[in-house]
Amino acid sequence: MNWQAVDRYAKSLIKEAGHKIRISFFNKIHIDSKADPNDLVTNIDREIEQFFISRIQRDFPTHKIFGEEGFGDNIVSLDGIIWILDPIDGTMNFVHQKRNFAISLGIYAEGVGMLGYIYDVMGDDFYHAAKGEGAYFNDELLPELEPTPIHEAIVGINARWVAPNRYVNNEKIMDLITTCRGTRSYGSAAMELSYVASGRLDAYISTRLSPWDIAGGIIIAQEVGAVATNFNGDKPGLLSQEPFIVARPGLHEQILTNYIEMKK
Amino acid sequence: MNWQAVDRYAKSLIKEAGHKIRISFFNKIHIDSKADPNDLVTNIDREIEQFFISRIQRDFPTHKIFGEEGFGDNIVSLDGIIWILDPIDGTMNFVHQKRNFAISLGIYAEGVGMLGYIYDVMGDDFYHAAKGEGAYFNDELLPELEPTPIHEAIVGINARWVAPNRYVNNEKIMDLITTCRGTRSYGSAAMELSYVASGRLDAYISTRLSPWDIAGGIIIAQEVGAVATNFNGDKPGLLSQEPFIVARPGLHEQILTNYIEMKK
Repeated sequence: MNWQAVDRYAKSLIKEAGHKIRISFFNKIHIDSKADPNDLVTNIDREIEQFFISRIQRDFPTHKIFGEEGFGDNIVSLDGIIWILDPIDGTMNFVHQKRNFAISLGIYAEGVGMLGYIYDVMGDDFYHAAKGEGAYFNDELLPELEPTPIHEAIVGINARWVAPNRYVNNEKIMDLITTCRGTRSYGSAAMELSYVASGRLDAYISTRLSPWDIAGGIIIAQEVGAVATNFNGDKPGLLSQEPFIVARPGLHEQILTNYIEMKK
Repeated sequence: MNWQAVDRYAKSLIKEAGHKIRISFFNKIHIDSKADPNDLVTNIDREIEQFFISRIQRDFPTHKIFGEEGFGDNIVSLDGIIWILDPIDGTMNFVHQKRNFAISLGIYAEGVGMLGYIYDVMGDDFYHAAKGEGAYFNDELLPELEPTPIHEAIVGINARWVAPNRYVNNEKIMDLITTCRGTRSYGSAAMELSYVASGRLDAYISTRLSPWDIAGGIIIAQEVGAVATNFNGDKPGLLSQEPFIVARPGLHEQILTNYIEMKK
């Protein structure tokens, strides 16, 4: 596989998709919700996923596609080459804000992350990484992340997990948010991963993410030394929803040990 | 007073300050903290405030200046014409993220908001309003805000207030965040106010803000029909720190009545 050629192809495809999303605001967007009434999806999410699939199937017919909107392949293992795609990560922001959403793409070979991309479409900020080659913000090489003490850390976390919930002990989360320097919440896991990779956040935590939310971002984050795992400290699974934490080295272990207590 | 001329002057001054802030990233920034170790201030906050003051004193010698960094006048009443300035709102973001901070400026005549500005310096997004003339996002007139039901609302609130705190009953805040569609937290009151004015957030709540955090934003928000008050439902004070809520009409009353219970 000529990964440099795949990289050039993927970048160009993502930029073209970003352009399609920007011009979609000229027309009325059709909004539906999924099982959860707050889990929104639009015709644009669907059209952009179909755009990716038609191009990838034409140009890389042996590759498989695992996408949020379900138009890709039925993926039950990580065998072969798989493009794991979220056409619009942060659909609620796309609908309500017309900004703060991202295209997220990770390309995996036999389960190993080879190429990762996060494109903040309205900010025109492009994050990308190739395995072993470092991670880039636009054309700038991102530096290796240094440790940060918890009391100087800014943590990305949704306020929802500070209230009682079925996933984690919220009293421990209260300890976390009163110990760290500050918290932020942007409503797009991919954007929050890109913020950890570029040092704008020191950690990001979510109790439940899907493979397409993180597949691109973890490749980028790992190239700068961030640690990304589920709440057991294991490598994130890429076949089902799981809890997720990514953080600077050291801080990851500290948060997981002292502040995350999963409910049985 | 020729307010149109003041408006042109203020816009030009803010853009020039924004340029100074952007080029400040070429040099090392000196960071101090105030009484609270997480309340950061830098040499750039101070230099930008002094830049505004020197220009305003030269060109409008009868006007007073009320600024976060304390280089302006000692303001004990709202008599006369007062420029209420935060040179960098969101200093923690300025330091940690090099983005997501804003210049905030409100110009008041005998306590009445005449001109309001919020400039997202790195995003180059300029929000402005003149009393009775509507509010603008860049050069686009912002539409009047329509009511939104609470279960479809996105609320700007820091996770800190979901944990026990000395200002509000956090159990009520838990009810709010589990009832609304979603929450966000950006770490800059001025940016969050600009998001409410432009419909990107439906409400924004903070337990304690200073006059310079809100002075520009409330003029902009009110021009599109948003309601801005303290937690008693009164007009925000502009001489001291107070709790603050701004929201779409209807939603403001609903949140204040059902979800905000101040501690004695």
